[in-house]
Amino acid sequence: MSKAIVSKEQDYSQWYNEIVIKAGLADYSAVKGCMVIKPYGYAIWERMQRALDDMFKETGHSNAYFPLLIPKSFFSKEASHVEGFAKECAVVTHYRLKNSPEGIVVDETAKLEEELIIRPTSETIIWNTYKGWIQSYRDLPLLINQWANVVRWEMRTRLLLRTTEFLWQEGHTAHATAEEAIAETLQMLNVYAEFAEKWMSMPVIKGVKTANERFAGAVDTYCIESMMQDGKALQSGTSHFLGQNFAKAFDVKFLNKEGKSDFVWATSWGVSTRLMGALVMTHSDDDGLVLPPMLAPHQVVIIPIYRDEEQHQKINEVVSKLKKEFKAEGIRVLYDEADNRSPGWKFAEYELKGVPVRLAIGPKDLEKGTVEVYRRDLKKKEFVPIDGITNYIKNLLAEVQKSLYEKAISFRAENTHKVDDYATFKEILDKKSGFILAHWDGTSETEEKIKEETKATIRCIPMNGEMEEGKCIYSGKPSKQRVIFARAY
Amino acid sequence: MSKAIVSKEQDYSQWYNEIVIKAGLADYSAVKGCMVIKPYGYAIWERMQRALDDMFKETGHSNAYFPLLIPKSFFSKEASHVEGFAKECAVVTHYRLKNSPEGIVVDETAKLEEELIIRPTSETIIWNTYKGWIQSYRDLPLLINQWANVVRWEMRTRLLLRTTEFLWQEGHTAHATAEEAIAETLQMLNVYAEFAEKWMSMPVIKGVKTANERFAGAVDTYCIESMMQDGKALQSGTSHFLGQNFAKAFDVKFLNKEGKSDFVWATSWGVSTRLMGALVMTHSDDDGLVLPPMLAPHQVVIIPIYRDEEQHQKINEVVSKLKKEFKAEGIRVLYDEADNRSPGWKFAEYELKGVPVRLAIGPKDLEKGTVEVYRRDLKKKEFVPIDGITNYIKNLLAEVQKSLYEKAISFRAENTHKVDDYATFKEILDKKSGFILAHWDGTSETEEKIKEETKATIRCIPMNGEMEEGKCIYSGKPSKQRVIFARAY
Repeated sequence: MSKAIVSKEQDYSQWYNEIVIKAGLADYSAVKGCMVIKPYGYAIWERMQRALDDMFKETGHSNAYFPLLIPKSFFSKEASHVEGFAKECAVVTHYRLKNSPEGIVVDETAKLEEELIIRPTSETIIWNTYKGWIQSYRDLPLLINQWANVVRWEMRTRLLLRTTEFLWQEGHTAHATAEEAIAETLQMLNVYAEFAEKWMSMPVIKGVKTANERFAGAVDTYCIESMMQDGKALQSGTSHFLGQNFAKAFDVKFLNKEGKSDFVWATSWGVSTRLMGALVMTHSDDDGLVLPPMLAPHQVVIIPIYRDEEQHQKINEVVSKLKKEFKAEGIRVLYDEADNRSPGWKFAEYELKGVPVRLAIGPKDLEKGTVEVYRRDLKKKEFVPIDGITNYIKNLLAEVQKSLYEKAISFRAENTHKVDDYATFKEILDKKSGFILAHWDGTSETEEKIKEETKATIRCIPMNGEMEEGKCIYSGKPSKQRVIFARAY
Repeated sequence: MSKAIVSKEQDYSQWYNEIVIKAGLADYSAVKGCMVIKPYGYAIWERMQRALDDMFKETGHSNAYFPLLIPKSFFSKEASHVEGFAKECAVVTHYRLKNSPEGIVVDETAKLEEELIIRPTSETIIWNTYKGWIQSYRDLPLLINQWANVVRWEMRTRLLLRTTEFLWQEGHTAHATAEEAIAETLQMLNVYAEFAEKWMSMPVIKGVKTANERFAGAVDTYCIESMMQDGKALQSGTSHFLGQNFAKAFDVKFLNKEGKSDFVWATSWGVSTRLMGALVMTHSDDDGLVLPPMLAPHQVVIIPIYRDEEQHQKINEVVSKLKKEFKAEGIRVLYDEADNRSPGWKFAEYELKGVPVRLAIGPKDLEKGTVEVYRRDLKKKEFVPIDGITNYIKNLLAEVQKSLYEKAISFRAENTHKVDDYATFKEILDKKSGFILAHWDGTSETEEKIKEETKATIRCIPMNGEMEEGKCIYSGKPSKQRVIFARAY
C-alpha cells in the first residue's frame, strides 16, 4: 500500500499532511506558501460553501464582489488596521512585462504611481465603496457577503490551515445603531457555531477574544474555538463588532430618522478553507480521513466483487436499482466498477478518503439477499438484508453524523482541565495538552508573560462560562471568570 | 425620476453604462479599471454560475482551485502564450510594507527573487501541476474546472465587458488522444451555446476563430458570437483545443495502454462576467434592464396599493397565499411592501431592474378577484383573475423566456447582410452595422488590411455555414465559405 500513512502517535504533523495530500484534499504548488485545492477537497469546500451561503441568505444577506487590489493608502486610514494587515502582504508595483535579451522582464516604465496590495481582508475597499451607497437610514442595514481569495504573506505555512493564499467568505455589514451591529455580530457567530456543530460534527466554544487577540480595527472580536486531536486549539471562525472605526476612517455617515447625521456602525465576519483543516484534525484516524456524512462528497460507495462477467452483470442490476433508491432519498452514492483496480485497492482508497459507508456486493450476497455494510468511523462491518437497505443507510448516515459529534465532545471533555496554579498549568500543557480553564487577571501583561513562558494563549473568554470568583494563576490578582488557555494553530 | 436613463438612440454607450449602474449590476471602484459587482448583479451571476456548474458536472467535470500567483518564468515556457499574456499584467515584486516618516512604504528588503504575476489565465500553473498528477492513461482524462478571478491590465475598460479584474470559470482538461480532446473542446462549446440560448435567451453563432484571433497557445479556438443591439458582435465564450503545446512546454507525458510514452492532449474553455454585459445589451430597452426569467433574481414582484391599514392587511392575506403558491411552483417572488416608497417609485424601480413580471394588487382588485399583471419585455398590462394566477404566471414566464429569444433571433436576422463587394461592405458597416457574411481568401494579410481599413474583424468561420464558392471581397481570390465580419466589443 503506497497510500499507507504515518500514525497520529508517531508524528501528528506528518499524519495530518499525509492525509491532506493522499486523500486528495490539497497539495503544495510551485508558488511558495500557496496551495492547490484538489477536486476531492474542493468538493468538500463546495458543500461547506453551499450550506453557509444558504444560512447567510436565510439571515438576509446578499453576495457581492469587491476588487482584489487595494490602494496602499487605504490601509493607513484606520490606525490599528494598518498595524495588523499592511505588513506581510503581496505588493503589485508594475503592470507590464517586456521582452529583453534575458527573457521577459518587468517593464520599468510601467510602474504604478501608487502600489496596490492584494487584499488580505477587504474592510478598507468595502468601506470606501459603502461611502457612495449609504446616505440615509433607508439604505441601512446593508447586509453583504463576498466569497473571495485573499493573500497574507505567511512565513510558515501548513496546507489548508495557514497558506499565503486562501479562500474564504467575508461578511461586511452596516447598521444605524450599535445595538443592531452587535446583534448582527452575535447572530453570525451563532451561524458559524451551528454550521460547525451540525454540518462538521465539530463542537465549538463561543467566546470573546482578549484585546491582544482582537482583529486589527475591531471593538470586539468573537470567535468559535475547537479542539484538535493533539489537544491544540484551532480558531475556526470570527465575527467582529467594528464600532464606528471604519465609518470614521472612510467618512461614512448617514441621516437618521430624526434627520441627524451620524457615523455608521459596522461588523465583519469570516470563515475560510481552514475549516477543511479543522475537519481533518477533528475526526480522522490512522487509516485516513473520516468525513461527517453531511459534508462527504460521496456518502456511500458501492464496490462490486465478481469473478466473471455474468456475476458482474447480476451485481450491476441490483446496484442500478439501489442507486436509484438512494438518490431518491438524497443519498450521494458512488458506484465504483472500474475494472483496472482490485476490490482491495478500492477498499483502502475509500477508507483513506473517509467515505462514511462502504457497501460491497458479491455473488454470495446476491444468493443470500444481503450486502456487506462497512462503517468508516467505527471500522465496523456487518451483513444487512438488501431489502430495506435504503432506509437502513439513511439512518446509519444520521447516526454517524451524530456519533462523530459525540465522540469529539467526549474527547474535548477529557482534555479540558480546570487548573488553579501555574505549576500544574505548565505541567498539563507539556504532558497532556488540551484546553485549560484558569483564572486570569484581565491584563495584557499577564497574558503576554504566560504566552512567552508557555506558548499558550487565551483562546477566548467563553460566553456561556459561569461566573466564579478566583485568583489569576500567574499574578494572584482577583478574577471573576475562568478563561480558556491552549496552545493553538 | 432621478433614475431615468438616456435612450439607446441618443447614446448607446451611455445607455449601457447607465443601465449597469442604475439597475444595480456593477459600478466603478477606487481602483482604476476594477469594478464592484453589486448585489443585484451578483445575484444574476450566481444564477449563471449555478446553471453552468450543473452543466459542467453533468458532463463529468469537477471543480478545483489553483494559485492566483504565477512565477514569471512560467509564461516563457510556451512560446506563443507569452506573447499573448505576459504583457499587460499585474506584477507582484515585494511581500512586505513598513512604516516610514512618509507613512507606509514598500520594504525594499522584501523583494521577491522572482516576480509573481497575478493570473491572466491559468494554463501555465495548471499544466505545471498536472505534471505531478498524470503518469499513465489511468489518470486520464482529467476533467477540471475552476471558478476564479483573473487580472489583465486593460487600458480602456467598460463595466462588465472589459475590466482589469473579472470573474470567470476556466476549464482545463487533459486527454490521451487528440480526437478525445477535440471532442471535449466541441462539447464545451455546445454547453456554452446551450446556456446562452436556453438561459440567457441569447442566440449565438458557433464558429472557429482565424489564426489572428486565436487564443495564444491554442491549435484551434472555437467561439460563440452574439449580436448586440447596436449591431456589434460580442465574443461570449471560447473553447480551445491546445494540442500538445502546454504538455510539451511543461513536460507532461503519460504511458499509454501499450506502455509507450506520449505527451498529453489539452483543452481549455471559459466564460466570464462579460456574459452579464451581453445580457444587458441583448434585451434591455430605454426603460432599463430586461431580464430573461430563468436568470432573473426576482421573476415576479408584487406591489400592494392601499390607502389605509385595513386595506393593507387584506392585501397581505391574499399575497401571503399567492407567495406560497408561487414558491411551491418554483417561481421566485418578491413582495415589496416597504411603506417608505410610493407604488409609482416601485414601478419605475422594478422596470429599471428588469423584473419580468410585476403584479399590482389594490382594493378594487380584491373586490373583483383580479390582479394587474404587467409584462416587462412588452410593457403590456392586463387584468387577470386571481383564481388560477399561479399557473398563468408560470406559463407567462416561459413565454417571456421564449419570446426574448425569438426577438433577438429576428433582430440578428434583420442585421445580417450577405455582401459580395468591398464598397457595400464598408457602406453597411458605417450605415447599418451588424454581421456581414462575406467571402475571404483565408490569409491573415487580407484580414488585417480589412481590420485596419474598417475596424471590422472576422468574428468566426461559422461551423454550420454552408459551403459556397465565391471570391474574397478584398483580394478577389477564391473562397469556399462565407465568414462573419463585424465590429466587435
